[in-house]
Amino acid sequence: MSATAAEHDAMRRAFALALEGPRGLNPQVGAVILSPAGDVLAEGWHRGAGTPHAEVDALSKLTPDAARGATAVVTLEPCNHTGRTGPCAVALLEAGITRVVYAVSDPGDASSGGAQRLRDAGVEVVAGEGLAEGEALLASWLDVQRLGRPHVTVKWAQSLDGRAAASDGTSQWITGPVARADVHRRRAEADAIVAGTGTVLADDPALTARREDGSLYDDQPRPVVVGTRAVPQDARLRQHPRPFMQDEGDDLPDLLDRLRELGAHRVFVEGGPTLASSFLRAGLVDEVLVYLAPTLLGGDKLAVGDLGIPTIAAQRRLDVRAIERLGDDLLVVATPKEAP
Amino acid sequence: MSATAAEHDAMRRAFALALEGPRGLNPQVGAVILSPAGDVLAEGWHRGAGTPHAEVDALSKLTPDAARGATAVVTLEPCNHTGRTGPCAVALLEAGITRVVYAVSDPGDASSGGAQRLRDAGVEVVAGEGLAEGEALLASWLDVQRLGRPHVTVKWAQSLDGRAAASDGTSQWITGPVARADVHRRRAEADAIVAGTGTVLADDPALTARREDGSLYDDQPRPVVVGTRAVPQDARLRQHPRPFMQDEGDDLPDLLDRLRELGAHRVFVEGGPTLASSFLRAGLVDEVLVYLAPTLLGGDKLAVGDLGIPTIAAQRRLDVRAIERLGDDLLVVATPKEAP
Ligand SMILES: NC(=O)c1ccc[n+]([C@@H]2O[C@H](COP(=O)([O-])OP(=O)(O)OC[C@H]3O[C@@H](n4cnc5c(N)ncnc54)[C@H](OP(=O)(O)O)[C@@H]3O)[C@@H](O)[C@H]2O)c1
Ligand SMILES: NC(=O)c1ccc[n+]([C@@H]2O[C@H](COP(=O)([O-])OP(=O)(O)OC[C@H]3O[C@@H](n4cnc5c(N)ncnc54)[C@H](OP(=O)(O)O)[C@@H]3O)[C@@H](O)[C@H]2O)c1
Repeated sequence: MSATAAEHDAMRRAFALALEGPRGLNPQVGAVILSPAGDVLAEGWHRGAGTPHAEVDALSKLTPDAARGATAVVTLEPCNHTGRTGPCAVALLEAGITRVVYAVSDPGDASSGGAQRLRDAGVEVVAGEGLAEGEALLASWLDVQRLGRPHVTVKWAQSLDGRAAASDGTSQWITGPVARADVHRRRAEADAIVAGTGTVLADDPALTARREDGSLYDDQPRPVVVGTRAVPQDARLRQHPRPFMQDEGDDLPDLLDRLRELGAHRVFVEGGPTLASSFLRAGLVDEVLVYLAPTLLGGDKLAVGDLGIPTIAAQRRLDVRAIERLGDDLLVVATPKEAP
Repeated sequence: MSATAAEHDAMRRAFALALEGPRGLNPQVGAVILSPAGDVLAEGWHRGAGTPHAEVDALSKLTPDAARGATAVVTLEPCNHTGRTGPCAVALLEAGITRVVYAVSDPGDASSGGAQRLRDAGVEVVAGEGLAEGEALLASWLDVQRLGRPHVTVKWAQSLDGRAAASDGTSQWITGPVARADVHRRRAEADAIVAGTGTVLADDPALTARREDGSLYDDQPRPVVVGTRAVPQDARLRQHPRPFMQDEGDDLPDLLDRLRELGAHRVFVEGGPTLASSFLRAGLVDEVLVYLAPTLLGGDKLAVGDLGIPTIAAQRRLDVRAIERLGDDLLVVATPKEAP
């Protein structure tokens, strides 16, 4: 069974509706209710954890019985889970929906099974309409579901020989403007940007994502400072458009949990070396971005410190995903190799 | 004025003759004496410092007066210098040569000016015939003339974060077989291969240049051990086809001078980290080969130690000449940036 032209169009509309909702703990989902003739009866989307799911939001705009015999077009498989709201599959059945078209299957252990429940009740179900677009829309949320925490990117800039600074701590600039612009572009794609107090005190970073002309990107990740030392009253960070959050950093998994609760799918760890090493040592890193400058520094200001790797057999092998030349610099994008 | 077809052919022959001589302190040079009709009267080449130059070697095969009115085709400008042999320019004049064709100009301060001297004496001189091939033939010797010492390549293998080994010193294997084969191929192009006693004692390297099947390349660089500690009686190095030379390492420029005297144009410094850092700190490095493995090690076993760089303004910027993917690894070939 495949979707009709009207359902195909309704799915495109549902994707647009999904984006009305916030990126957060719950997925962004859109829904359109179509009459048997293919006319749009109602639209809905999900506004975040604790609010109605998209299908229910759409149904709520109709009088009882208005959806009898209608089709629900939803970007995500209707859930089968009683949480803060009841199962959407049941809501659809109760409303008299007789056909459901959806893009992406629900990956949750507790929430999946909605399609089966609908089928068992005699509803026609079409799965996978607009699958690629649906997965792209939900990519970061699906990552979080798979990982059980936000996706963590750790970025650092280093000399070819692995130093983050010269012996006296000076490091501006190891990498050039093209590499720095790339960092800002990638920052803007994250939901949270994390820096240690060491970096905040040493470099007084703004922790904003800026275009090359200095203007701010529309999306600014939430700034997070890790460490017990106080952020100075005159720190540039205090001018960030979003107030920063400070965390002692004694429990990084817990920090990530809290960022997830706040809706962060992608966390960008900017360093410095001590914090980056802690994330690596804890095995909490999904992607490393190493900006390699064509320079040698020697000395003791290492970009990465101790990782608790005693012997070569315990090395942390990476898969190189991309190598980019950025001006004079090189960016290596790598992910931890899966255990074989 | 340009060369005739016969002279062109004679130059190709002279290049082949040049290669009969050894690569060493003096350039490899070949010479052909042509009759006015373009017939080959005699051939010669240079057999190394203290032996006759190629032109003189060729003339020596002729009876006096046999070269009157003849043409000398030489791969290098005839010298104007009285060393262990007299100036070739004078020898050519005395033999009655009336035309000289050569490929590459003599770069030496003391030895150049031969062409001018010949012209002043009324000899027709054609310079630059086969220039590119001549320069390729002499490339490593010309490097030595320009540098005043052998050309030094320092190679090391490191994790992405700049470690040469894990905390316990284990390092086999950081890089993969493709990278290791590349190292051997490049070793074979060197005249000397230098390792510190630290590496010799820790790794017991053979210091041979081997093909992937384990067989030896035809050209084996001379093995050199730097350091005061003794090389064990059962060291694999003692099975090297060429006897190794040991040097205390307290005066690296002097070591390079002696290697030059022994005919080394290209010196390949294999490490370890302490020795590589010494060469870098002394500014004696013309090329670095960094084999970057996609792995993280952390810890204190750094591929490069202290370089005496106090502050970022003193960083050693490099020009990246090539980036190659070798299996999973990356090779960065770089040269020190010339001071602007
Ligand atoms: N090359 C680069 O890409 C790059 C990037 C950033 C910074 N840097 C340089 O790095 C230097 C600062 O380095 P750093 O290592 O001192 O700074 P850092 O990693 O930014 O901060 C380390 C501090 O974070 C706090 N912290 C709290 N929980 C932690 C945990 N779980 N793991 C690690 N740290 C935790 C601790 O401070 P408390 O005592 O306050 O708890 C710790 O001393 C500066 O010179 C800066 O320029 C370089
Ligand atoms: N990753 C790589 O590419 C690579 C390559 C080679 C080795 N390694 C590893 O490196 C480790 C050995 O490192 P290492 O640093 O101890 O060895 P090293 O650099 O090979 O040897 C250092 C020793 O050389 C002698 N030396 C003499 N003159 C010197 C000078 N001017 N500068 C520096 N050294 C001089 C000193 O020994 P004396 O006391 O005898 O005078 C010094 O301790 C091994 O674990 C090996 O596996 C890694």
